[in-house]
Amino acid sequence: MVVTADIGVFGLGTMGSALALNLAEKGFTVAVSNREAEWIAPFLAEAGPLLDHLVGLADLEEFVAALSKPRSVLFMIPSGAPMDEMIARIAPLLEPGDTIIDGGNADFHDTRRRSAALDAQGLHFVGMGVSGGEEGARHGPSMMVGGTDHSWRQLRPMLEAIAATFEGTPCVAHLGPDGAGHFVKTVHNGIEYADMQMIAEVYGLMRDGGGQQAPAIGALFQSWRDGPLKSYLVDVTAAVLSATDEPTGRPMVDMIRDQAGQKGTGRWTLIEALRMGQSASTIEAAVGARGWSLEKDAREAAEPLLPAGTQNASMPSDADLEQALLAGRILSHAQGFRILSAASAEFGWELDLARVSDIWRAGCIIRSALLDDFASAFRGALPHGHLILAPAMRARLAETIPALRRVLAAGVSMGIALPALSAAMAWYDTIRRGRGTADLIQAQRDFFGHHGFERTDTTGRHHGTWGAPV
Amino acid sequence: MVVTADIGVFGLGTMGSALALNLAEKGFTVAVSNREAEWIAPFLAEAGPLLDHLVGLADLEEFVAALSKPRSVLFMIPSGAPMDEMIARIAPLLEPGDTIIDGGNADFHDTRRRSAALDAQGLHFVGMGVSGGEEGARHGPSMMVGGTDHSWRQLRPMLEAIAATFEGTPCVAHLGPDGAGHFVKTVHNGIEYADMQMIAEVYGLMRDGGGQQAPAIGALFQSWRDGPLKSYLVDVTAAVLSATDEPTGRPMVDMIRDQAGQKGTGRWTLIEALRMGQSASTIEAAVGARGWSLEKDAREAAEPLLPAGTQNASMPSDADLEQALLAGRILSHAQGFRILSAASAEFGWELDLARVSDIWRAGCIIRSALLDDFASAFRGALPHGHLILAPAMRARLAETIPALRRVLAAGVSMGIALPALSAAMAWYDTIRRGRGTADLIQAQRDFFGHHGFERTDTTGRHHGTWGAPV
Repeated sequence: MVVTADIGVFGLGTMGSALALNLAEKGFTVAVSNREAEWIAPFLAEAGPLLDHLVGLADLEEFVAALSKPRSVLFMIPSGAPMDEMIARIAPLLEPGDTIIDGGNADFHDTRRRSAALDAQGLHFVGMGVSGGEEGARHGPSMMVGGTDHSWRQLRPMLEAIAATFEGTPCVAHLGPDGAGHFVKTVHNGIEYADMQMIAEVYGLMRDGGGQQAPAIGALFQSWRDGPLKSYLVDVTAAVLSATDEPTGRPMVDMIRDQAGQKGTGRWTLIEALRMGQSASTIEAAVGARGWSLEKDAREAAEPLLPAGTQNASMPSDADLEQALLAGRILSHAQGFRILSAASAEFGWELDLARVSDIWRAGCIIRSALLDDFASAFRGALPHGHLILAPAMRARLAETIPALRRVLAAGVSMGIALPALSAAMAWYDTIRRGRGTADLIQAQRDFFGHHGFERTDTTGRHHGTWGAPV
Repeated sequence: MVVTADIGVFGLGTMGSALALNLAEKGFTVAVSNREAEWIAPFLAEAGPLLDHLVGLADLEEFVAALSKPRSVLFMIPSGAPMDEMIARIAPLLEPGDTIIDGGNADFHDTRRRSAALDAQGLHFVGMGVSGGEEGARHGPSMMVGGTDHSWRQLRPMLEAIAATFEGTPCVAHLGPDGAGHFVKTVHNGIEYADMQMIAEVYGLMRDGGGQQAPAIGALFQSWRDGPLKSYLVDVTAAVLSATDEPTGRPMVDMIRDQAGQKGTGRWTLIEALRMGQSASTIEAAVGARGWSLEKDAREAAEPLLPAGTQNASMPSDADLEQALLAGRILSHAQGFRILSAASAEFGWELDLARVSDIWRAGCIIRSALLDDFASAFRGALPHGHLILAPAMRARLAETIPALRRVLAAGVSMGIALPALSAAMAWYDTIRRGRGTADLIQAQRDFFGHHGFERTDTTGRHHGTWGAPV
């Protein structure tokens, strides 16, 4: 059997299968393989008319031999050790100019390491973030590509064909070399964590502060679907809050145990931010909240024991909730983009944040009406690179910040946890003040640690003449 | 010259010099050395009557030969590469049973690595956290010791003699093996960051919300010095806010540029917390605030551009500020202790948090009246290991949480950033609610990623039957 497949897809899990079918549907010939060979036949059996464009090859040498040169091999397998193992197995079968693509959620430091190692062998390595879940992968994901120009030229026709589109423009871009694509995907996921958390906070305020049932809360999210919050996650929220659990007839969400898992990308965003001296406090709040959700036994034990100390307040209006969530969403995206800027500067990626916004407008989990505004903002003059300083963003904030303040004041008075929304507010109130309070911190540090400080009226390092604290 | 010194101190910077003098003053004979040999003579020249107990030896072999066996060599040098370099130089000169002590702020992962490497050579390695700044090191620091029982027996008489004391009890303890001491010091510093930040937030609220000048704010801190906030950092704050800049006659703090540096321990605390699935959100807020303080140019550019959107509110009372700060302090310590518990479980340290509280009662930067209460709380029954569930802590929180809510509602309305205090509040409001909002997050994740969830009424992994989000 002589085949010349346009691309090989190794790994027939949910995402790999969906991407292989998507490629086949767009007319490309796809060789597929899988570590467990017995997954291949069932995959092909369900491919229907797309089978003409698919060839299954259990043997790795045959799989590689079936690919047109220069070869493109897309791995959709768990990141970490399995990826290193497969690289070690396949690299000797490849030739200079071939490209290995990792389409999983990898730590971009690993991607950089793998790129460098393969480059020494004349091979190209692409770290590609793929967002959109199974549906997206099958019918149009958003893809964030990091790698060489050589690989991009080779992959571009295929990726543009399978990507989601926004007003005709495919949601895929070559964002930079080595780890750029995976890091952008990591931060995408961090922003996704924050957005989901802020939505959950509004839900919590309505449920525990306003005493509302899930369907009523879902109806409010439903009403926001065509407004400024228009987004996939608001759609999803409206749907899941309206769903009924058939066996019990109760709202589905009320039957779900409130313990949320996480797979690492939120945490990676934060660790990288910390390492660079940045803070993504809204994402931290979301990651922290998931961690605390796992301490359910402790929370149940704490509930009857801990004093609430609540203060009088009335529930914010529905309009305020909508505006507050919009403000929070703008601010958490702005924090995410700051992390991208910092990493871009450090690793020489020259990330184009307008392009990043472009390809997030469709296909990915955080797609929203706002992203088109962000793309425009990044194409305009942006003082100090801060998204929120763009004129259009300032106008949005002028409309929404008052509501965010009212919602937070109500929430804190009523005893409802709003960690991500309050982190967004605190960041905003920090960044909009020329003189902060670190002067006191510098004074304290000089007092007890002789760290020194700069003065406002001259240059150099200075120390205070402090009286004893007696 | 035949000497038998009780201990060697290598590194005559601020902290090393102070510890050497402290040891000499307590009657121990101390051999001192330094990488730059020319630092030794000036140090000895300023030792005055303590010179009898000090011997300076520039040559490393002579320095080692001067020590009584089993030897104790305390390094007070920068952590990282210099420490590894000195270990490589001195280890061949030592004999089985000797102990190398690292008294700097090391990453406890390095300490674990060094302990294992030296253990293979029959040598002991102690990672010792030393807190209290120069004054503390000279006249009584708090010391957190990690290492073997063998080393502890050897060091204990010296360390107990030089430590700070609280009601006669020395503030030094053997907390566990290898990295235990350095990690406890790291978290100590994380809590210190949070405490300084919360103090700065109250200062910011009074200054920017209440329009008060530094001396008036300092006077309020002064008035809190003998109340429940009694602590070194409140003392320091009162002192620095009352200090005048001689050249200008203005409050000293007003002449200090509001950009705060950091040396890594706050960040280490957070990265370790994240790695363990924990969150120390108050410490994150403090580390983040220091990072943002460095973006002064951006903040100055933002000030006239960003809309404030403030809402009517009145300044909280002085009593509310005091209570709010106390609540924040309790909560941020509780978060720090959670991190210690998690690390102790992971690394098998069996940390005794009552002992940790004991040795933080004097000598260290975060010493406060509260720590004695914490020590008692940890010695009592503690549901789920949560400090705030101790009866005495719940009583404190019942008194203070209402004020924290009022202060936060005022701050958010007035546009004053209170990131650490609001993070403390959000954590409290999360942990005191048996049912959180992660049920919605699990529903969302199942909807778009088929992640599955647990049900409240049965076991196993389940999926929802979600309608399409159309």
